[in-house]
Amino acid sequence: MLDSGSYRRLTCQAINGHHEGSAAVRRTVFNEDHEAFRETIRDFIAKEVVPVYESWEASGHPPRDFYRKLGALGVYGIEVPEEYGGAGESGFKYQAVVTEECARAGVTFGSSGVHTGLVLPYLLEYANEEQKQRWLPGFVSGDIMTAIAMTEPGAGSDLAGISTTAKLSEDGTHYVLNGAKTFITGGVLADLVLVVCRTAPYDPADRRAGLSILCVDTTSEGYAVGRKLQKIGLRTSDTAELSFSDVKVPVEDLLGEEGKAFSYLTHNLVQERLAIAVGAYASAAAAVRFAVQYVKDRKVFGQAVAEFQNTKFTLADCEAQVVAQQSMVDRALELYQHGELTVADAAAAKLFCTESASVVIDKCLQLHGGYGYILEYPIARLYTDNRVFRIYGGTSEVMKTIIAKSLGL
Amino acid sequence: MLDSGSYRRLTCQAINGHHEGSAAVRRTVFNEDHEAFRETIRDFIAKEVVPVYESWEASGHPPRDFYRKLGALGVYGIEVPEEYGGAGESGFKYQAVVTEECARAGVTFGSSGVHTGLVLPYLLEYANEEQKQRWLPGFVSGDIMTAIAMTEPGAGSDLAGISTTAKLSEDGTHYVLNGAKTFITGGVLADLVLVVCRTAPYDPADRRAGLSILCVDTTSEGYAVGRKLQKIGLRTSDTAELSFSDVKVPVEDLLGEEGKAFSYLTHNLVQERLAIAVGAYASAAAAVRFAVQYVKDRKVFGQAVAEFQNTKFTLADCEAQVVAQQSMVDRALELYQHGELTVADAAAAKLFCTESASVVIDKCLQLHGGYGYILEYPIARLYTDNRVFRIYGGTSEVMKTIIAKSLGL
Amino acid sequence: MLDSGSYRRLTCQAINGHHEGSAAVRRTVFNEDHEAFRETIRDFIAKEVVPVYESWEASGHPPRDFYRKLGALGVYGIEVPEEYGGAGESGFKYQAVVTEECARAGVTFGSSGVHTGLVLPYLLEYANEEQKQRWLPGFVSGDIMTAIAMTEPGAGSDLAGISTTAKLSEDGTHYVLNGAKTFITGGVLADLVLVVCRTAPYDPADRRAGLSILCVDTTSEGYAVGRKLQKIGLRTSDTAELSFSDVKVPVEDLLGEEGKAFSYLTHNLVQERLAIAVGAYASAAAAVRFAVQYVKDRKVFGQAVAEFQNTKFTLADCEAQVVAQQSMVDRALELYQHGELTVADAAAAKLFCTESASVVIDKCLQLHGGYGYILEYPIARLYTDNRVFRIYGGTSEVMKTIIAKSLGL
Amino acid sequence: MLDSGSYRRLTCQAINGHHEGSAAVRRTVFNEDHEAFRETIRDFIAKEVVPVYESWEASGHPPRDFYRKLGALGVYGIEVPEEYGGAGESGFKYQAVVTEECARAGVTFGSSGVHTGLVLPYLLEYANEEQKQRWLPGFVSGDIMTAIAMTEPGAGSDLAGISTTAKLSEDGTHYVLNGAKTFITGGVLADLVLVVCRTAPYDPADRRAGLSILCVDTTSEGYAVGRKLQKIGLRTSDTAELSFSDVKVPVEDLLGEEGKAFSYLTHNLVQERLAIAVGAYASAAAAVRFAVQYVKDRKVFGQAVAEFQNTKFTLADCEAQVVAQQSMVDRALELYQHGELTVADAAAAKLFCTESASVVIDKCLQLHGGYGYILEYPIARLYTDNRVFRIYGGTSEVMKTIIAKSLGL
Repeated sequence: MLDSGSYRRLTCQAINGHHEGSAAVRRTVFNEDHEAFRETIRDFIAKEVVPVYESWEASGHPPRDFYRKLGALGVYGIEVPEEYGGAGESGFKYQAVVTEECARAGVTFGSSGVHTGLVLPYLLEYANEEQKQRWLPGFVSGDIMTAIAMTEPGAGSDLAGISTTAKLSEDGTHYVLNGAKTFITGGVLADLVLVVCRTAPYDPADRRAGLSILCVDTTSEGYAVGRKLQKIGLRTSDTAELSFSDVKVPVEDLLGEEGKAFSYLTHNLVQERLAIAVGAYASAAAAVRFAVQYVKDRKVFGQAVAEFQNTKFTLADCEAQVVAQQSMVDRALELYQHGELTVADAAAAKLFCTESASVVIDKCLQLHGGYGYILEYPIARLYTDNRVFRIYGGTSEVMKTIIAKSLGL
Repeated sequence: MLDSGSYRRLTCQAINGHHEGSAAVRRTVFNEDHEAFRETIRDFIAKEVVPVYESWEASGHPPRDFYRKLGALGVYGIEVPEEYGGAGESGFKYQAVVTEECARAGVTFGSSGVHTGLVLPYLLEYANEEQKQRWLPGFVSGDIMTAIAMTEPGAGSDLAGISTTAKLSEDGTHYVLNGAKTFITGGVLADLVLVVCRTAPYDPADRRAGLSILCVDTTSEGYAVGRKLQKIGLRTSDTAELSFSDVKVPVEDLLGEEGKAFSYLTHNLVQERLAIAVGAYASAAAAVRFAVQYVKDRKVFGQAVAEFQNTKFTLADCEAQVVAQQSMVDRALELYQHGELTVADAAAAKLFCTESASVVIDKCLQLHGGYGYILEYPIARLYTDNRVFRIYGGTSEVMKTIIAKSLGL
Repeated sequence: MLDSGSYRRLTCQAINGHHEGSAAVRRTVFNEDHEAFRETIRDFIAKEVVPVYESWEASGHPPRDFYRKLGALGVYGIEVPEEYGGAGESGFKYQAVVTEECARAGVTFGSSGVHTGLVLPYLLEYANEEQKQRWLPGFVSGDIMTAIAMTEPGAGSDLAGISTTAKLSEDGTHYVLNGAKTFITGGVLADLVLVVCRTAPYDPADRRAGLSILCVDTTSEGYAVGRKLQKIGLRTSDTAELSFSDVKVPVEDLLGEEGKAFSYLTHNLVQERLAIAVGAYASAAAAVRFAVQYVKDRKVFGQAVAEFQNTKFTLADCEAQVVAQQSMVDRALELYQHGELTVADAAAAKLFCTESASVVIDKCLQLHGGYGYILEYPIARLYTDNRVFRIYGGTSEVMKTIIAKSLGL
Repeated sequence: MLDSGSYRRLTCQAINGHHEGSAAVRRTVFNEDHEAFRETIRDFIAKEVVPVYESWEASGHPPRDFYRKLGALGVYGIEVPEEYGGAGESGFKYQAVVTEECARAGVTFGSSGVHTGLVLPYLLEYANEEQKQRWLPGFVSGDIMTAIAMTEPGAGSDLAGISTTAKLSEDGTHYVLNGAKTFITGGVLADLVLVVCRTAPYDPADRRAGLSILCVDTTSEGYAVGRKLQKIGLRTSDTAELSFSDVKVPVEDLLGEEGKAFSYLTHNLVQERLAIAVGAYASAAAAVRFAVQYVKDRKVFGQAVAEFQNTKFTLADCEAQVVAQQSMVDRALELYQHGELTVADAAAAKLFCTESASVVIDKCLQLHGGYGYILEYPIARLYTDNRVFRIYGGTSEVMKTIIAKSLGL
C-alpha cells in the first residue's frame, strides 16, 4: 500500500468510482450548468492536481503557473462581468461546486479560495471603474493573484487594534505604508494585496473609524514577505507574515472610501461562512467516501474491515451526519441565492457543519488505522486541513455569540 | 414559581409568545393551508389540553371523550377519503403539523399518533370496501379508536418469533385467537386492535410466511387488557399488555390476505420513521424555546441566567442543532411527498434527529436547574418522552444497519 | 419477560451473581470491616427492599417503619458517638458502601441520604450537648427522621435571597417562623426539619449575614406540608413544599449561633459532592452490570444481543468510563479520609463522575431496547434517578466555576 | 507573538512556571527519587531540547548525538542491570516520568520511547548472556540505538500475515533475510533492528508458529532504509520503510528461541499500553497548562480570553478529565509495579486516557484560536502528535475487544 503511486490510485478511485458511498439523497440545489461545471472541475483535479499534489505539499504551494491554468479554465472569472473578461454568472453555487470537488479529492487549489471567495467580493463591490479595468482582467486570467491582509501580530480578530499606518504624502499622490501583518493566506505568491490599515489615529469614541483598504502591489519597494508559517494542515496554501517599510502606495490604489474599511470588512461574512460550511460538509462527505473504500479494500485477520459491525455502525453514523450537513448547506445555498440568508443562519450553518465534520473526519481516520496517520492518504490531509474550519472565518465561539443574539440572549 | 398554575402559564407563554426563540430560518415546506391548520391545532392545545394535562398524566391517558373532540376537529379524517367521512387530503404534512404543535407545548394527544400514524395506513391500503365502510367513519369521528399489537413477551421486534395463533374454525366463519401481546400503545382505550398473529405454523424455510392481521373488537369475549406498563415518560399514552383466550374473530375481520402480514408490516416504516424524526426535531425546538424563556425569567445571584456566557453558548449550540434537524426534516417531508424518500433516507433522518434531539433536550433541561427535574415543567416531560424516540420505530442500531447497507457495507 | 416478578428476579440475579461484570480492577480503598458491612447491606437490600420496592414507588416513599429497620441495622448510627447510641466509627466510607449497594440494586433508601449525609454533619458539628442528647438517639434509631429546608420558591440556590423569617418573641423564649420552602427531600415524613431562616433583615453590605438554622418539630402548630412534587425520578424519595405560619420554635432549638447559618451551610459541601460522585459512579457500574446480564439473556433474530460487536464495544467503552470514575472516587475517598480533599478536588470528582455516568447509563439503557423504557427494569430507574446528579449538590456549571478558580481563572 | 523565539519563551514559561494549572490533586505514586529524576529531566529538556526543537522537526529526527546525551544522562540505563552499565532500578515509573516531562514541554525524545519502552523489555527477557554483554552497554550509552520491525506493507497488525523470511544457510552459521517492513519508528537512525520474520512456512493449523526475531545490524549488506513516511505529527520521530535483500544475519543474533516470536510479542503489551496511557494523560495535562497560560496572556477586544465564562468552563471541564486520567494512570502504575495490572486493566486505561486526551487537547487548541493551528505553538504539536495514541499499541477498537472479553462478552 505504501508503494509509490498508492495515493494517486486511492484518490482517483474515490473521485471517479461509480459508487458514491455518501449523501446519496437527491439534491435539488444545483442545476445542469452547475453539474456540467462540476464534471469539468472533477476531470481537471484528477488530471492536473492529484498526480502532482505531493510536490505542492513539499514546496508549500502550487507552482505560480497553476493559477493561470485555473484562470484559463474559467474558475476565476465566473462572477466577474463580461466586460472585464469574466462570465458574468450570478451565483455563489459555482464556487460551492469548486469547494466540493476539491474536498472530494482531498486537495486544495492553494490560496484560490482567498482569491475568489474573499478578495473578489471587495473588488466587485468597492473598486471604481478604472480599478476594475486595471485589475479584473488579470484577476480572471490568474496573472494577478490577490490576498487580503487584516490580522496583525498581537491584534488578532480585533480590527480596532490594527496599528499598520498609511499616511498621505504631502503632495497627496500616495500613502506611505508601515507595519506588519501575519496569517496572510496566499501571501507568498500574491501580486496584489488588500491591506487594511489605519489612515486616521485610533479614536476611542468610534472604534470603527479610521481604517482603510489599500491595494498594494507586492513588487513595491519596502514590501517584504516574512516567514512562511508552518501549519497543522493546509500545506499547499502559503501563509505568510508581511512587512511594510515606507511602502509608497498611489492614492489611485485606495479601495472605496477612506475610513470605511470596517463596514466593508463585515459585508462579506455571510458568504465567507457559508463557503466554509460547504467546505466542511464536502470534506466530511469525502472522508466517508474514502473510508468506505478503504474498509472494503483492507483486510485484517482474513476479513475485510467493512465486515465488522463497528465499521458499519460508525460509517452509518457519519453518513447521517453528512446528510444533515448537506441538508443544511443546500438550504443555505438556496436562501443565499435569494438574498435571504441571515448572519445568524450562516453562523448556524458554519457552526454545525464544521463541528459535525470534525467528528466525522476523525472517525473516518480512525477506521484507516495506522495508515490514517500518514499524510499520503487523503484522509490524513482532510483531518489536518479540517481543523482550521472551526477557527477561521470566525471561531465556533464567535458563531455562538451571533446565534445567541438571534435568540434574544 | 411552583405555585399552582405555574405550569399552565409557562406553557401558554411559550406557545403563544411572539418570540419564537428557535429555528427562525424561513421554511418552505408548509403552505397556507398547513399553516391555517397549525393555528387551529395550536389554539386547541392551549384551550383543551394544557389546562387539564396534569389530570391526564394522573390517569395515564386522556379521557375517552377527548378523542371524539379530535375527531370533531378533523384531526383523524385528514387523509381519509370523503366517502368515509374524511377530508381526502393528500399528505403527511398535516400529521407533521400536529406532531410539531404537540411537541411545541410539551404535550401529547394520548395514543392518537398510533391511530393516525400507524393504523390508518394499513386500513387505507389493505381494508376491503366493506371494512372501510364499517370502520372508517368511526375512525374519523373518534368513536372507534384503534391500536396495533405486534410485540409479544419474549419476541421483541423479531416478527418471525410471534406465537399468538389464530386458527380457522371448522365452519370457516371465524378465527380462534390465543396468545399475549405487550407494549401496546393505546391498548387500554382501544376499540379495535390490529393483532398480528400466526395463521400457519412457523416454517424455517420461509420465516416471513404464516402471519396475518386480524382486526379484533376489544369487547370480544376472551379479550383482556392486562397490566398498564409504567414508563419513563409518555405518561398520557397508555401502554398495556393484552391477552387473548379463545377470542372468536369473524373471518370478515381479516385485514388483507392471510399470510401476508410480514410484507404489510414493513410497508409503512418510512412514514413511521419520518414521523418520529419530525417529533424529535419539534421536541428539540420546543426545548430550546422553553429554555430561552426560562433563562430570561430566572434570576440567580441578581442576574438573569440568560446573561451568562455559558447559557448563551449552550443555547446557540442547541439552536444550530435544531436548524440542522429542521433542514433534514423539511427536505425529507418534501421528498416523501414526491414519493422519493428512501428507506435509507428515512433511517438517516430518524437517526440524526433523535440522537441530536436527545442532546439538545438534555442541555435545555440542565439550564433549568432543579426545576428541570420537576414534571410540571414541560422540559421535564420533553426529556422523559423523548428517550423512547431512539428506541421505537426501530432503534438507532437498526437505523445504522439500514444506512450501512445503503453505503454498500 | 414482563410477567410479574420479572423485576425482582432480574435485580436479584444482578446483585448476587458471581459475575461482577464491571470495574473488576482491585480496589484498595475499603478494608475488611467495610466489606463485611457491604455484605450486610447487600443482603438487607435483597430481602427487605427489592421485593417491595414497587409499592414504595407507588406511595412515593418507603413506609415510615422502614427507617426504623435501617436504624436497627445500624445504618444511621455509624458516625454518631457511642454516648448517643451510635457506633462512633470514623469515616465516610461506610456511607459510600451504602450508596454503592443501593445503586447496585437500582434502589434508594428513600430520603435516608439526606438524614445521614446532609443533616448529621450539622448536628455533630453545631448541636450543643443538650440537643445532642435530645435528638441523636432518636436519629440513630430512626425514630426521629430529619430533613433540611433551604430552597425557597423563587430564591433557588442563592441563600442571600431567603425570605423565611424567624422573629424572636418578646419574652425571648421562642422564634416565630413564617415563610415557605420547596424541594425539601424527606419533607413528607420528617420529624425534625432544619430550617434556614432570616433572623435579621437582609443587609446588602453583608449578604451572608442574618441567616440562622432552627430545628423545627414537624408536629408544631402552623407547620404544614404542601404539595408533593412529581419528579423525573427518585420516586421513592419524597420531595415536598413546606409552609410555616406563625410556627413557635423554642430558642433551645436554634442550631449553633444566630446569624451563622451561611458559613455552616458551606461547610459540608465537600462531603456532599463526594457522596454524589460515589452515587454516580456506583449507578454507572450497576448500569453496566444490568446491561451485561440483559444482553446475555436477550435474544434477537436467534442471536444473543451480547454477540453483536456493537454491544461489546458499547459496553467496553462504558466499562472503561466506570473504571475511570472508580479510580477518581477511590482516590477522593482516600484523600477525604485524610482531610486532604479540597473543594476543587470534590468538584472535579462530582463533575466528571456525574457527567460520565449519564453517558454510561444512557448507553446501557439503549442496549435494553424497549424494555429500558419500562420502569420495572432497574436500568430505567437508574436512568431517571441519575438525571438529578448533575443538578443537585451544585450543578455541573457550579462545579466548573469552582474548578476554574482553582486553575487561577 | 510570532516574533522569533516566541515558542521557546512560551514553552519555558509553561515548564518552569510556579503555577501548575492542572491536576493539582496530590499524587502518591512517585517517591522522592522519581521526583529528583523528574527535576533532572525537566532541566535537560528546557536546556537541551526546547531551544533546538524546531531544527529537529525540520530534519525529521534529533541529531544522532542527542541519543548519546540521553545515554550519558542515564535515561537508557535505568532498568538495565549494573553489570551491563545500567542503574538496575526496578520500575517503569522512571519511564513514566520521562514521558510526562516530554509531554509537559510538548516535545519528544525522537524514537527513544521505542528504544527503552519497546525494545529493552525484549533484550532483558530474551537475550542470552553473550548478547546482553554485546548489546546492552551500547544500548545504555546510546551508541547502539534500536528499533523493532513488525508491520509489513499489507499485513498490518496481523502477525500471522508476515512474509519476511529468514532461511538458515546450509552451513547453519547465518540466516538469509528477505522482505520489507514499514512504519518502523526509529528506522532511519537505528543501529540494531529487531526484525520479526518467518523461519518456517505459514501453517494454517498453527497461525502463531514459525515466527522468530532476528537482531539485525543495520550496516549489513542488503539492508536498506526506504522512504521516510510523512506523518500528521510526531515529526521528530523518524518512521521509515525497511527492505532486506539477502541480508546475512549470524545465528548468534537470533533473539530467544526460533519460532517463539508470537508469544514474545504479546508479552510486553501491558507495559506498552500503560506507557501510551501515561503519554496521553501527560499530553492532556500539558494542553491544559498551555491553554491556561495562553488565555491569561491573550487579550481580545480589550479583555483577557481567560475572563470569558466559556473559557473558564471549557478549561474546568478539561481539568476534570485530566484529573480522571491521572487517577486512572496512577492506580495503573501502582498495580503494574505490583504485577497486578491485567491486560484488560491496561486496555481500559489506554482506551479512556487516549480518547479523553483527544477531546481535551482539541478543546485547548480551540482556545488558542488561529495560533493553535501554527506548529510553533506547543499545543499544535500536542494535537498532531496525540492523534496516533488512539491507533498505535493497539487501536481503541482492539482495546474494546479486550475489555469486552473481560466482561464475559
